[in-house]
Amino acid sequence: MITEKFLEVLQHEGVVAIATQGEKDIHMSNTWNSYMRVTPDGRILLPVGGMKTTEANINFNNKVLMTLGSREVQGFRSKGTGFLVRGVATFLFEGDDFEMLKKDYSWARAVLEIRPESVTQTL
Amino acid sequence: MITEKFLEVLQHEGVVAIATQGEKDIHMSNTWNSYMRVTPDGRILLPVGGMKTTEANINFNNKVLMTLGSREVQGFRSKGTGFLVRGVATFLFEGDDFEMLKKDYSWARAVLEIRPESVTQTL
Repeated sequence: MITEKFLEVLQHEGVVAIATQGEKDIHMSNTWNSYMRVTPDGRILLPVGGMKTTEANINFNNKVLMTLGSREVQGFRSKGTGFLVRGVATFLFEGDDFEMLKKDYSWARAVLEIRPESVTQTL
Repeated sequence: MITEKFLEVLQHEGVVAIATQGEKDIHMSNTWNSYMRVTPDGRILLPVGGMKTTEANINFNNKVLMTLGSREVQGFRSKGTGFLVRGVATFLFEGDDFEMLKKDYSWARAVLEIRPESVTQTL
């Protein structure tokens, strides 16, 4: 589901956006392309500093949307590509994945794990 | 509401994410920092190629969230800044703003106008 093109995007810095559905409102949080890890079994892991509203929303509805891209990576027709990920999110506060990211991001209070249901190249 | 820092971000390429609330689901669409225009009266204008679901959602609920940023612009504590815009969106299919963007983006079928209600520097 995670393609070579997706992994290529992660080699270029950029803003990742994560949208969650709260009881009242949509919320958006952000991270950087370079902070993202893809596990061998295709899960996406991100270090979490703040993201309190995202966490609260996920406890209400664990479906998330995420977009990311890079103008420097070839898309379908020209330079610039992007992806839309639909997935199910979990906050991890312990375990191997948490310990792994904590080594690189000492400020991480948690890890946001996204299990993709679909990964669409949009451009 | 739109700060110098926000305008500085637009000088660096990056992925803009726009989240809208549909009847059933959240939707996200994207554009590039460099495509964004800020008018003298503080409205945000973007050329629209596709964005059919965004358009349908806005006819249902015209509130949008938008995030953008750049790792290359100084934030509160280090390099890297980002913004969250809450605003009210309208699709423009004619008029001066449409004609202005159409000159630069001949593929534009419309202009997405966002009137910001808040613009928050998040990092």
